[in-house]
Amino acid sequence: MTNFEAVQELLAKLSIAADTTSHASVASGDAWQAELTKQAVNARVTKTLVLKPKTAKSATVAPVVVFALDDATVPLGPLAKKLGVKEMRMAAPDLLQEVFSVLKEDVSPFMLANVDRAAYATVHVVVDADLLASEAPVAFHPAQADKTVALTGAALRAFLTGSGIEFVEVNFKELAASAPAPAAAGSSTAAKSKPAKQVKQAKAEAEEATGTAKIGVEAKKESDFPKWYQQVLTRSDMLEYYDVSGCYIIRPWAYNIWKEITAFFDGAITEMGVEDAYFPMFVSQRVLEREKDHIEGFAPEVAWVTKAGSSDLEEPVAIRPTSETVMYPYYAKWIRSHRDLPLRLNQWCSVVRWEFKHPQPFLRTREFLWQEGHTAHLTKEGAGEEVYEILDLYRQVYEDLLAVPVIKGIKSEKEKFAGGLYTTTCEAFIPTTGRGIQGATSHCLGQNFAKMFNIVVEDPNTPADAGEPEKLFVWQNSWGITTRTIGVMVMVHGDDKGLVLPPRVASVQVIVVPCGITARSTEEDRKRINAGVEEVVRTLKRAGVRARSDVRDNYTPGYKFNHWELRGVPIRLEVGPKDLEKRSTMSVRRDNGSKAAIAMDDLQTAVPALLRTIQDDMFARAKATFNQHVCRVEKWDDFVPTLNGKNLVLIPWCEREECEDSIKERSARADEGEEQDERAPSMGAKSLCIPLELPQDGTIVPGETKCVACDHHAKRYALFGRSY
Amino acid sequence: MTNFEAVQELLAKLSIAADTTSHASVASGDAWQAELTKQAVNARVTKTLVLKPKTAKSATVAPVVVFALDDATVPLGPLAKKLGVKEMRMAAPDLLQEVFSVLKEDVSPFMLANVDRAAYATVHVVVDADLLASEAPVAFHPAQADKTVALTGAALRAFLTGSGIEFVEVNFKELAASAPAPAAAGSSTAAKSKPAKQVKQAKAEAEEATGTAKIGVEAKKESDFPKWYQQVLTRSDMLEYYDVSGCYIIRPWAYNIWKEITAFFDGAITEMGVEDAYFPMFVSQRVLEREKDHIEGFAPEVAWVTKAGSSDLEEPVAIRPTSETVMYPYYAKWIRSHRDLPLRLNQWCSVVRWEFKHPQPFLRTREFLWQEGHTAHLTKEGAGEEVYEILDLYRQVYEDLLAVPVIKGIKSEKEKFAGGLYTTTCEAFIPTTGRGIQGATSHCLGQNFAKMFNIVVEDPNTPADAGEPEKLFVWQNSWGITTRTIGVMVMVHGDDKGLVLPPRVASVQVIVVPCGITARSTEEDRKRINAGVEEVVRTLKRAGVRARSDVRDNYTPGYKFNHWELRGVPIRLEVGPKDLEKRSTMSVRRDNGSKAAIAMDDLQTAVPALLRTIQDDMFARAKATFNQHVCRVEKWDDFVPTLNGKNLVLIPWCEREECEDSIKERSARADEGEEQDERAPSMGAKSLCIPLELPQDGTIVPGETKCVACDHHAKRYALFGRSY
Repeated sequence: MTNFEAVQELLAKLSIAADTTSHASVASGDAWQAELTKQAVNARVTKTLVLKPKTAKSATVAPVVVFALDDATVPLGPLAKKLGVKEMRMAAPDLLQEVFSVLKEDVSPFMLANVDRAAYATVHVVVDADLLASEAPVAFHPAQADKTVALTGAALRAFLTGSGIEFVEVNFKELAASAPAPAAAGSSTAAKSKPAKQVKQAKAEAEEATGTAKIGVEAKKESDFPKWYQQVLTRSDMLEYYDVSGCYIIRPWAYNIWKEITAFFDGAITEMGVEDAYFPMFVSQRVLEREKDHIEGFAPEVAWVTKAGSSDLEEPVAIRPTSETVMYPYYAKWIRSHRDLPLRLNQWCSVVRWEFKHPQPFLRTREFLWQEGHTAHLTKEGAGEEVYEILDLYRQVYEDLLAVPVIKGIKSEKEKFAGGLYTTTCEAFIPTTGRGIQGATSHCLGQNFAKMFNIVVEDPNTPADAGEPEKLFVWQNSWGITTRTIGVMVMVHGDDKGLVLPPRVASVQVIVVPCGITARSTEEDRKRINAGVEEVVRTLKRAGVRARSDVRDNYTPGYKFNHWELRGVPIRLEVGPKDLEKRSTMSVRRDNGSKAAIAMDDLQTAVPALLRTIQDDMFARAKATFNQHVCRVEKWDDFVPTLNGKNLVLIPWCEREECEDSIKERSARADEGEEQDERAPSMGAKSLCIPLELPQDGTIVPGETKCVACDHHAKRYALFGRSY
Repeated sequence: MTNFEAVQELLAKLSIAADTTSHASVASGDAWQAELTKQAVNARVTKTLVLKPKTAKSATVAPVVVFALDDATVPLGPLAKKLGVKEMRMAAPDLLQEVFSVLKEDVSPFMLANVDRAAYATVHVVVDADLLASEAPVAFHPAQADKTVALTGAALRAFLTGSGIEFVEVNFKELAASAPAPAAAGSSTAAKSKPAKQVKQAKAEAEEATGTAKIGVEAKKESDFPKWYQQVLTRSDMLEYYDVSGCYIIRPWAYNIWKEITAFFDGAITEMGVEDAYFPMFVSQRVLEREKDHIEGFAPEVAWVTKAGSSDLEEPVAIRPTSETVMYPYYAKWIRSHRDLPLRLNQWCSVVRWEFKHPQPFLRTREFLWQEGHTAHLTKEGAGEEVYEILDLYRQVYEDLLAVPVIKGIKSEKEKFAGGLYTTTCEAFIPTTGRGIQGATSHCLGQNFAKMFNIVVEDPNTPADAGEPEKLFVWQNSWGITTRTIGVMVMVHGDDKGLVLPPRVASVQVIVVPCGITARSTEEDRKRINAGVEEVVRTLKRAGVRARSDVRDNYTPGYKFNHWELRGVPIRLEVGPKDLEKRSTMSVRRDNGSKAAIAMDDLQTAVPALLRTIQDDMFARAKATFNQHVCRVEKWDDFVPTLNGKNLVLIPWCEREECEDSIKERSARADEGEEQDERAPSMGAKSLCIPLELPQDGTIVPGETKCVACDHHAKRYALFGRSY
């Protein structure tokens, strides 16, 4: 029995009316439609897509089979989201053979009826709703490209149901419209003519899909950290996903934190004598490629502008991934004498690194905001002093503003800045994943760039009798801190209720909520309570506290509590009728939930004090956790188990690059067989830094203490860890 | 007599030794060199470039002919600068025929000797210095590709001089090295191995070329405004030219002004309830093109990223020229109810408009800094109120901060923002050129974008008994102000000594200079005076004045006076020995040069008061000039003469686009015949705005007053002018 005969038998068995036609073998939808038209068969041709979602190597692939009208647009992104799978691509032919033991041409709804469901248990079968709703017959190949079976949408549904095929019916148009901007834009014609009712429905769906309609976070931080992180960011209004991959919208709730960081840091460096400037975002190829080691580090991620309007540019220009090569030709021009030193410039801007690794909001994005300082000094010592001065400002940003503990240290040769002399770093730690994360780096570039760009002065210390003064290449630094700070802060402090903001960076430090207004309250009661609330806000503002009231009349106090807890506001003050009588308010701390009454008359002093306490407590807790997870290890056998226990590992180390490579290799969880990917917890440990101060006691006896990872002598203690 | 014979005759006449060789006809330098080598002729082959500088259509083309060693790199940009011509390109063959009546192949130094110099009076002849210095013979074709005449560099020089050929000798290597970064980068191999001595020389030349070595401005504002503008910007350290065309480096001296503007404006809009956010710089093509009118306005200037590293992107992404289409898909998502209105976001960022018009620092650049506010409102009235509130903040930036008078008004339909409902504007005026300049615009977008992006809410005012609530598209505004502000300020206030900074935006308001230290002064005198200077600075800082001392010991007071005058510092305070005795200082105003003694004990009050006076005086003077140049015209015959008198013209106007086009055409100085170019003073007048308040009396009688430019009835007074 041919496949075709089998299909006919099947349809007969289920008493489903279908017309069958033979025709020339066709290779495209258009050719097929033409054949049917030629034979006067009234049927709409269909298409079958076989898709492979992104899957870890070790996991079983769960293909997605889509049956749709040939002219339907299948929105892959939203569909993947709906099915709960990752990024889908067209499957390679061998996948089909593996799963169904058939060729792609053979896949049809009819074929599925002949295959044991168990054989394709993992397969998602998706059917276009338009196809099922079609009154005109829809055409399938019964596993042969020269035959057509045509049946109405209703008959198709009867067939699928009758033969027990589990499938998901999807309205692709609505799915596309309901998704955020990109997909909606893709089907813009449909969207434009959509009546208001459908708009409402599409919006409701969009809200469902993206979770914005939900208040609060469902994912648990401990059990599903990636989803938790995403939900916290989007539902607290910090961030919105954007339709260009790897780019995100920083919403005011997050941007305000960045403003606090910039205000602090810009103030501090201005005090040091650093001045702000702005250099262009574009770099010509020849300037970009002037320093070889440096460009090798960045080249694969450089974005190139090659067109303007519809014209090709004569020469493509790069978008700065960092500005060393943008700035230093001009440093060579501006620095004409040692009197022009130190030259210290800084800019606040965005840079672009078109990474192909998995992007993650704030932590790894293709465009990010940062400051980059670039300075030139007469001496190595002068440059070095600044390197550490800046490093400590970065520590202050993390520890004092964001209440996130960091360890200051020096990067290994392998991990240092491309083209620089040495790199210092603030390393933070994400306890939930046990991974380290580079917080900010301050590099001494040495004289390497000065030599490439010819930044030279006459040595003012040349002895008078030495004739021609000596030429000196200047010593340079560069240093930067990015919006990554915000992501680290969220990961360290957030909890299952959402964001927890350290008071110093919270744009709303205190939210004042009226309580105790019930159905029996009079209008006068309501007014009196709201007036009390506003009085509290005024008092706090006068005391320099960023306070806001929430007197919305269409939400319950409970809703408001959740709303502001999700957004991490450090203190909630409740003001009810009884509180007013007692001239008191009830304070609730976001960080630990503890409640305490505060007399109205004490607000001006008690609230600022409480904010300071919260800030200190948050840091102390995070610091304790950090310390707990920095484990000293004295023999290799303990290395990987300690790492697997979500810890960073401190070891006496030889500082050899071969040893570093070997540690990475030997500490990867090869047994779990997942793809080697920065995301995967299976990756090997990198050296995070050689700490400036050992977090724990430990001495190295030169020529005696051995490196924990190899036979060589250890030089210093180094911190290793899996990292972001 | 063949050309070849003519050359030989000529050489003989001048008694110049030259070897001549016949060989196969060659079409390239390499083939030529190969032919000579084959024939064992010891000679270096040369090349001849014929270049055409950019020239106005009506002007006579002045070609540039370059003779150089075949392997020489000719730096076209620096060469053009050196010759004082514009952008050069390879000439089309017909140019040669036109000028010399010869083919390109025929051009050689020998040919020039046979042509009357008058016939090529406009031609620049450039000869490679390396070629003239060559001890090995250099090879030319004597107007035939199968013949070679070889002679030493010295012989060539003798020939050129002997036959009266005027030429410019250029060392291309040095020229390339002396130019700013780009050219230097182009010859990086050379630069790397350059010994320190040459570096010094190259630097000196670079300084000469770009004028940074000079203190003060040589160009006069009135007689050579473009050069004056360039010199003021670069020599005051505000701006540096950059090697990507249309992009400039904003140095701290200018960036600080931008910081003052941002601090003022961001504070004001925060007060209004606007919040800062950051949206990605990239837009996908489909989103960018969603609003047709809008994108039509921007499409030709959009820069496209098509590559990352060495891979082509699957889909090119645009760099935002403005962010309407970047933001509004998300507004549609975020605005779910009238309670979400008004939504008011702002961002400080850079945008890219890859204009092909002549760029001008600050005024027209391919990347520029700005803020862009984007807001959504429930009602047209609500949106309109904000439009004017923002417009007035822009007026304050210009008038109160920069002391630059502006006229607020509404743009004509032709000049309004692409895709918007109406555009309001602050128009400034540059007296030196008599041209208007758009200062900043605040647009009401109406509901157009809301409809395109489906930004809709339910009407909260739907009567309760009306059933389903009405759907309302929101009313939107967008508004922006850019770093153009800085350029306008420089043009309005600067004078022949350089920059003049309004005190409110000057990062140094008072410079305190020690005077009266002579050769006879003791070290103690010097110390006492410097101590006095520092005391003055401390006193001023305590009074909130941005004061700085200049106690450099390697410059004279005179040098320092020039240095700070060039940089526009509003007040100079001189402190000398006699001043100290009298506890007094001498103040000198930058804006008008007036001097007055200020007692040390009065500094805290007198200096802030003087700064206010200067600010007010600068504005008053600029305002008086502005008013003088806004001329009401009641008949067409006066229109162009008034315009030509460097004025803006105020006329009763019909507001028809045809009339606007006709005015532009009829007011262009066609007789001068220059290319129609925004730069040229010949361009026609555009409508600048319909002023909100008439700067002079004037009434329009509806149905009676005629448009000055046509026969239709006038609607309102409109301001016309040539503009930037």
